[in-house]
Amino acid sequence: MTLEELSARQRAFSDARAWGPFHTPKNLVMALSGEVGELTELFQWLTPDEATAAPDDPATRARIEDELADVLLYLVRLADVLGVDLLAAGHAKIDRNEVRFPAGVGKGALDKVERDS
Amino acid sequence: MTLEELSARQRAFSDARAWGPFHTPKNLVMALSGEVGELTELFQWLTPDEATAAPDDPATRARIEDELADVLLYLVRLADVLGVDLLAAGHAKIDRNEVRFPAGVGKGALDKVERDS
Amino acid sequence: MTLEELSARQRAFSDARAWGPFHTPKNLVMALSGEVGELTELFQWLTPDEATAAPDDPATRARIEDELADVLLYLVRLADVLGVDLLAAGHAKIDRNEVRFPAGVGKGALDKVERDS
Amino acid sequence: MTLEELSARQRAFSDARAWGPFHTPKNLVMALSGEVGELTELFQWLTPDEATAAPDDPATRARIEDELADVLLYLVRLADVLGVDLLAAGHAKIDRNEVRFPAGVGKGALDKVERDS
Repeated sequence: MTLEELSARQRAFSDARAWGPFHTPKNLVMALSGEVGELTELFQWLTPDEATAAPDDPATRARIEDELADVLLYLVRLADVLGVDLLAAGHAKIDRNEVRFPAGVGKGALDKVERDS
Repeated sequence: MTLEELSARQRAFSDARAWGPFHTPKNLVMALSGEVGELTELFQWLTPDEATAAPDDPATRARIEDELADVLLYLVRLADVLGVDLLAAGHAKIDRNEVRFPAGVGKGALDKVERDS
Repeated sequence: MTLEELSARQRAFSDARAWGPFHTPKNLVMALSGEVGELTELFQWLTPDEATAAPDDPATRARIEDELADVLLYLVRLADVLGVDLLAAGHAKIDRNEVRFPAGVGKGALDKVERDS
Repeated sequence: MTLEELSARQRAFSDARAWGPFHTPKNLVMALSGEVGELTELFQWLTPDEATAAPDDPATRARIEDELADVLLYLVRLADVLGVDLLAAGHAKIDRNEVRFPAGVGKGALDKVERDS
């Protein structure tokens, strides 16, 4: 099971339902944003410790997996519609991050991530 | 190049910089949300046609790939921290969607996605 | 009915339910983000024309007002917790925007908003 | 200085720059989402205590006020474009919340907020 297979499956799913006209880049960015919002709602009132322990509860784990899946599915669909190779883009970004954030720098580098990314 | 390799590479990258304490579920959900916000900003003022054509411009394509990569990297990192198999969750969600949205239903099913998901 | 009254009412509502410990800045930023996600879901599959006409339907208008209210309430609560005068900050930002975007510049200025803000 | 005045000022600002065609509901929802993303980035790597103390630092406070202002300005503009009275919608929502969450219920009510809202 690969990311490419997931993307192909999502495309076939959308084609079989004639959802192509709705799957414009703007609409899919919005759908992605909406799903990240739902994922956020699962964690918003938890303390840091509760959030870390959240997947230990089977029902909560199922909800988390469901929302992570929704985010992934819209991300994969958006990349497909835009003609972007998501895995290649991800690896290329880590390549660049290795230059921007030399190992061993710690929190300062995270601050830089937040400022520059 | 697989999603699992990308996840392992992200984990090693984080470990080498001792970023583990910052990569809590809540923090990573927020970081994911922030990156989706940056992706959104690339498309927000474009007409639907301009958004579809956006990847044709090399500089714009590079920015889009960069933001899609950021979203993917935080999503992969979050799933790793939560102990979730992202690909398996994605396929399981398509399985459920195939039951919820029988092929050939069209826009009504999209409305249902929005209401129920 | 003023924004200050709304903020005071929200604070009293939270105090009466002992929600203070949950209303940390991080939690409220996440809650705000989640509500914007719900607002986004109302518009994501609509064409631009459908989105413009959405408030003409009473049931849709009620949902839109409900989500806009949720966004406002968390924004007001967050500003209160952070000790920020939201209205003053808003006017100060327009003051700065009037310098950054001289009148009559058009779309180029919007591009600049997206790049710099 | 009232919210209505802020809204009128935002509308005049937009009109003077002929930004009306860009200020569609979908575009403004996306812009709102992008600004919430920027606000989120200010807090994502902070511990809860650091986030609470963030406004004590003048430079950080200025950035927080700037991002809160951006969120407010797009929210106000979106409500104006949709013909929604934001303050009235906010008060009406608190009215409904007072019924949904009787005072004194505590954390369980917050869980309910997350599930139902």
